[in-house]
Amino acid sequence: MPDSRVVITYCVRCRWLLRAQWYAGELLQTFESEVGEVALRPAAKDLEAGVFRVQVQASDDDAPVTVWNRKRDGGFPDIAELKRRVRDLVAPEMSLGHADRAAEA
Amino acid sequence: MPDSRVVITYCVRCRWLLRAQWYAGELLQTFESEVGEVALRPAAKDLEAGVFRVQVQASDDDAPVTVWNRKRDGGFPDIAELKRRVRDLVAPEMSLGHADRAAEA
Repeated sequence: MPDSRVVITYCVRCRWLLRAQWYAGELLQTFESEVGEVALRPAAKDLEAGVFRVQVQASDDDAPVTVWNRKRDGGFPDIAELKRRVRDLVAPEMSLGHADRAAEA
Repeated sequence: MPDSRVVITYCVRCRWLLRAQWYAGELLQTFESEVGEVALRPAAKDLEAGVFRVQVQASDDDAPVTVWNRKRDGGFPDIAELKRRVRDLVAPEMSLGHADRAAEA
């Protein structure tokens, strides 16, 4: 079982659970053999209002890499772009088919 | 942020991703302040065919406790029962309202 891990941290007060669940489902569908787990992490109400962050830990020995941060990148990721960023860390040789062609266009 | 963690391991070949996502959403909605994260873990195709397992790790120092295992418990958990089992480990004093009354009936 791969030991890479994706963590999606989302603002509870902003009601972004369903959005976070959707991204998790898309990543799990695309990387079902390449990712060990996708974790959904509710941001405590006061601490991180407005947070929407996706981090990838390629293996237990690697530090988490933030591939999306709403406050840094603005808004929410296009799913194809998010998949490319995750793929580049967990399975660099993996083709994403149309998601790759869209990026090259 | 609480450091308890719930892990839902599901059989990929059985197409139980959506079902696992649904349980994760229900647990995150009920325990948004009591659980640190809910992780979805795709079971590698060959290794664990037919697996549907929910484990709770109350803190980093605790061993994971299996609160549901399809092969042991048969089928899939009633959501209110699953919430009671998770609550008993992560927030024993927390009331689940109607979910508790249903259990007492």
